[in-house]
Amino acid sequence: MSAARDQMAVVLHRPQKLVNIAGVVRAMKNMGLRRLRLVQPAEYDPYDIAGIAHRSDDLLAATQIFDTLDDALADCVYVVGTSARPHTLLRRLTPRAAAPDLLARAAHGPVALLFGPEDNGLTNADLDRCHALLQIPTDPGYASLNLAQAVLLVAYELWMAGDPPPPAAPAQPPASAAQLERLFATAEEALWAVEFFKAHLAEGMLRTLRSLAHRAEPSAREAALLTAICMETINYLRRTGRQ
Amino acid sequence: MSAARDQMAVVLHRPQKLVNIAGVVRAMKNMGLRRLRLVQPAEYDPYDIAGIAHRSDDLLAATQIFDTLDDALADCVYVVGTSARPHTLLRRLTPRAAAPDLLARAAHGPVALLFGPEDNGLTNADLDRCHALLQIPTDPGYASLNLAQAVLLVAYELWMAGDPPPPAAPAQPPASAAQLERLFATAEEALWAVEFFKAHLAEGMLRTLRSLAHRAEPSAREAALLTAICMETINYLRRTGRQ
Repeated sequence: MSAARDQMAVVLHRPQKLVNIAGVVRAMKNMGLRRLRLVQPAEYDPYDIAGIAHRSDDLLAATQIFDTLDDALADCVYVVGTSARPHTLLRRLTPRAAAPDLLARAAHGPVALLFGPEDNGLTNADLDRCHALLQIPTDPGYASLNLAQAVLLVAYELWMAGDPPPPAAPAQPPASAAQLERLFATAEEALWAVEFFKAHLAEGMLRTLRSLAHRAEPSAREAALLTAICMETINYLRRTGRQ
Repeated sequence: MSAARDQMAVVLHRPQKLVNIAGVVRAMKNMGLRRLRLVQPAEYDPYDIAGIAHRSDDLLAATQIFDTLDDALADCVYVVGTSARPHTLLRRLTPRAAAPDLLARAAHGPVALLFGPEDNGLTNADLDRCHALLQIPTDPGYASLNLAQAVLLVAYELWMAGDPPPPAAPAQPPASAAQLERLFATAEEALWAVEFFKAHLAEGMLRTLRSLAHRAEPSAREAALLTAICMETINYLRRTGRQ
């Protein structure tokens, strides 16, 4: 839970399709946003949405419906609109650049992330309510994102700004140099045993195996398994009377 | 246009719904990706997809359909799977952390971005084909992204990473997925031949070997040498009458 993220309100102005609202709900749940506000939705039925966006009852129970955009924005301390439309007066930021600032502003109250209707986006009158514009980077030849995808990308950047990426999985204890040397010695013995060096130069081959193992950075357990493969090859040959 | 981005191949393994393929196509177009490969799609009709993802004819005309995952990955020099499933042997990266590296690897050939079926994701056998895993950061309480959204976020990070710097000293050509699969098959045959699997469980052991090889990233030449070791072990046993 992030107090700052909880202050982010996704405001959908005149969304037209229920399936898109459901997609927005899912994207919000994925990225830890909780506040959804709808202004004059053309279709809205929490039950139908919950059928598409599973396990979203908490978010839907808290969703607010408004008659006007001004009502929906009334308590917000900052409003950013998402638009590809030019509006020369407003600052234009990528979601990545804006995210830390948006989260910081949430200390003062709700911050609105405003998205327009699917077909035409926000009007100039809507943009007049905005402090700044978010412009999501895309291929300029194919810039049209659907509503849920635009919300997802903005919410993702807020999530990334609020939480550092997960640390790499705790590694298993690495093989020691001594364990690796034991592996290399056993491998060499096994390769002689199967007469591999009749056809290949030992020195270059062994160097290649060493560099492969060092790049793979085997754990102690993995080095032991590789050594066992070599040992058991040798043992098999002995057992079957070949050596 | 980015030469590196053009080498990124989105590989959908057994996608179930046409509408999701269309969503993937849109996301790819938004973020400037061009290569789509489908393995056993349950539903596929370019005409229907173009009706959902407008102006995507160029991408659909170049889309390839494969019978097996191995065929789809055969020419790829690097494979990353997207999975929330734990797989302790593989390196796990966020798309943001991985993007510059993926673009740099594209200097050597196609790089596969592998996504599993909508319902169950990639299996362990699918993950066995991967060099590393992408884990998209989400709220851990609601981690399930739909297919098009997962592709969108990975493609977005590749777009944001921009054009990579020219690669460092030209490495040796990396082993292709097909070469690695040949190595794994020959290694397995050799391990059976020396009766290694009398004392060790084959499945876990083979998975360990796969992950070691993927982490080591052998060159084509190195993979050929490792395959030769296995082959000549088998040949030696035959030659000396053991098999």
